[in-house]
Amino acid sequence: MKRLLVDMDDVLADATGQFLNFYEKEFGVRISREALNHKDELEGFPDNHEALRSFVFRKDFFRTMAVNENSQEVMRRLNERYEVFIVSSAMEFPNSLSEKFEWLNEHFPFLHWKQFVFCGHKSVVHGDFMIDDLPHNLEAFKGEKLLFSAPHNLQFNHFKRVNDWKEVERMFLG
Amino acid sequence: MKRLLVDMDDVLADATGQFLNFYEKEFGVRISREALNHKDELEGFPDNHEALRSFVFRKDFFRTMAVNENSQEVMRRLNERYEVFIVSSAMEFPNSLSEKFEWLNEHFPFLHWKQFVFCGHKSVVHGDFMIDDLPHNLEAFKGEKLLFSAPHNLQFNHFKRVNDWKEVERMFLG
Repeated sequence: MKRLLVDMDDVLADATGQFLNFYEKEFGVRISREALNHKDELEGFPDNHEALRSFVFRKDFFRTMAVNENSQEVMRRLNERYEVFIVSSAMEFPNSLSEKFEWLNEHFPFLHWKQFVFCGHKSVVHGDFMIDDLPHNLEAFKGEKLLFSAPHNLQFNHFKRVNDWKEVERMFLG
Repeated sequence: MKRLLVDMDDVLADATGQFLNFYEKEFGVRISREALNHKDELEGFPDNHEALRSFVFRKDFFRTMAVNENSQEVMRRLNERYEVFIVSSAMEFPNSLSEKFEWLNEHFPFLHWKQFVFCGHKSVVHGDFMIDDLPHNLEAFKGEKLLFSAPHNLQFNHFKRVNDWKEVERMFLG
């Protein structure tokens, strides 16, 4: 069975949407998702970058993220055909550890805790495929790398790209 | 730089000692560490095995473990000569996630959070050396395996063994 490593934020979970929601609640302005396109993470927001960086330390930021469209159904089927691990850089935000664990249990109950990896640097994990939205995570990986599209990575062209979970489905289950 | 993966419970941290302490507090009987020798984890305790298994879900069980003798000084030096990762099967006890993170920051402040991995099944990590007290963790590893002696693993002879941190020091830094 081939091993598939899947990231959480902006792959399974709509981290970008959570930043947009928290920004609107805090500053009363709804930034469009498109305004963030082709800009490094958070750089697409017009201002308040320090506040934006603090959002990830707030209670429930990670716990209440929306699930990305079609990810549950595709992951359920991938889990039958691949050795799936969820690999998340959770150590940077220690409060996220329990929130991410609960989030996975709620939204992906068919995954076992043995399939979860919360790490710092992803160079320590190995497998056949990695799906991630951050180029620096893919760079450290030895297997086949797939960049999952997010507003903050549209400017990168040096990785094979998957735009959404339907594309993941076609690629791995088609 | 060679990569060295180091376990927490009963390698860096005295998990066995914590079970002995919790057992004494709960049942008023001090079991000797030697009584646990050559028996599977927890099997060396005379009774109350269900209570013993519940201790790991109690607040502070992981947070207040003692540090194993010489581990801090040896780890500090290993960290200068090897690419060190701390790899702990923390997912089985979700309450342990933040406690283990805080414990590492307190007792091994020279390690960066990028060096921490909390996982379920250790087959997902790779490196040159793994130091672990549990044979099933070593079995899944492709590099050089070292069994760190603990009462519950003295009956196993199919792995190269390190008995304490002074032995680790001689082997890796001698």
